Amino acid sequence: MRKGEATRERILESALELASTEGLTGLSIGRLAERNAMSKSGLFSHFGSKEGLQLDVLELATAKFRERVFTPALRADRGEPRIRALFTRWLDWIDHQSLPGGCLLTAAAAELDDQPGATRDALVDVQRQWADTLARAVRIAIEERHFRPDVDPPLFAFQLHAIVLGYHHARRLLRDPHAGRRAREAFEALVGSARRRKGRVA
Amino acid sequence: MRKGEATRERILESALELASTEGLTGLSIGRLAERNAMSKSGLFSHFGSKEGLQLDVLELATAKFRERVFTPALRADRGEPRIRALFTRWLDWIDHQSLPGGCLLTAAAAELDDQPGATRDALVDVQRQWADTLARAVRIAIEERHFRPDVDPPLFAFQLHAIVLGYHHARRLLRDPHAGRRAREAFEALVGSARRRKGRVA
Repeated sequence: MRKGEATRERILESALELASTEGLTGLSIGRLAERNAMSKSGLFSHFGSKEGLQLDVLELATAKFRERVFTPALRADRGEPRIRALFTRWLDWIDHQSLPGGCLLTAAAAELDDQPGATRDALVDVQRQWADTLARAVRIAIEERHFRPDVDPPLFAFQLHAIVLGYHHARRLLRDPHAGRRAREAFEALVGSARRRKGRVA
Repeated sequence: MRKGEATRERILESALELASTEGLTGLSIGRLAERNAMSKSGLFSHFGSKEGLQLDVLELATAKFRERVFTPALRADRGEPRIRALFTRWLDWIDHQSLPGGCLLTAAAAELDDQPGATRDALVDVQRQWADTLARAVRIAIEERHFRPDVDPPLFAFQLHAIVLGYHHARRLLRDPHAGRRAREAFEALVGSARRRKGRVA
């Protein structure tokens, strides 16, 4: 890696940290320059604009999310085990302490919903892809005959995402000590309702 | 109402509008002064500080939420009809167009989770009271024998809030045209799972 690239990566990691507590719109070139003991013009040479910086930070957060949630969950068996792995790793991701402010992708969703622009568009793309990924995992669970054929994959994906948003709210805002248990119970209820019933009376 | 109070209320309404798109932390005395064609010092005389302004805006948003969601839902019959009224009015509240940025209380939850201070504390109080209100409505539904006695009221409240957060995300960020239908289907599944089963095989 050339020196310029290494510097750029170091700045991006520091920007991701800053954005995780201050929000993407709170990510000012000025504060980032201060944290990295660089000049503002030096930072502009790496990212071009505040929007360029936001897009790069969003891309970094998405890459980390894939690496820690999606990719390892693919190692779980197809069907319900994989959905379980996706859910568990997603909660872990929200808890992980390497970012002080938790999941940037969730925080950015509430932050940017009324802020039109390229950053919002990029976030919407990422979130739509994720909803599709979840729905695909549900379709596989139906194919594997873990779930009933009448389960609605996009609805299940909506319900699963809702539980994670509820967890984020209870854990990070309310600091509710029962947040994890409740999210897991809600997940079990959702999965239980989608399963094929064994020995069911016809 | 004295003139000072009327002015203060007008400024607060305009501050709530601004906060609904820009966030509570984006609520600057400077921008608010500009919108109301007042001096910054004039605004300070009404609210004392940015934090005082944030707290007053939060109180106004909470009062509106009570007036539009909670109070009218109390007119519905105790038990499941009241829970249904709470849910329906809550979704309407998120949709209502009088605030350009939608539900300030939901946006503020994601915004302030990492911002310690009096505004965060006040928001946590409001959100905890709301979770208690929902759990109490579930307890009443158990008393009325609409729901099974083994339904866990705080868990149900968590699941209900999660559906609304999922709706907020799908509707406001993704602009998903199916958001309302999915939220209602998720609600029916939740209520269905809590109901007493009639004519169930023992």
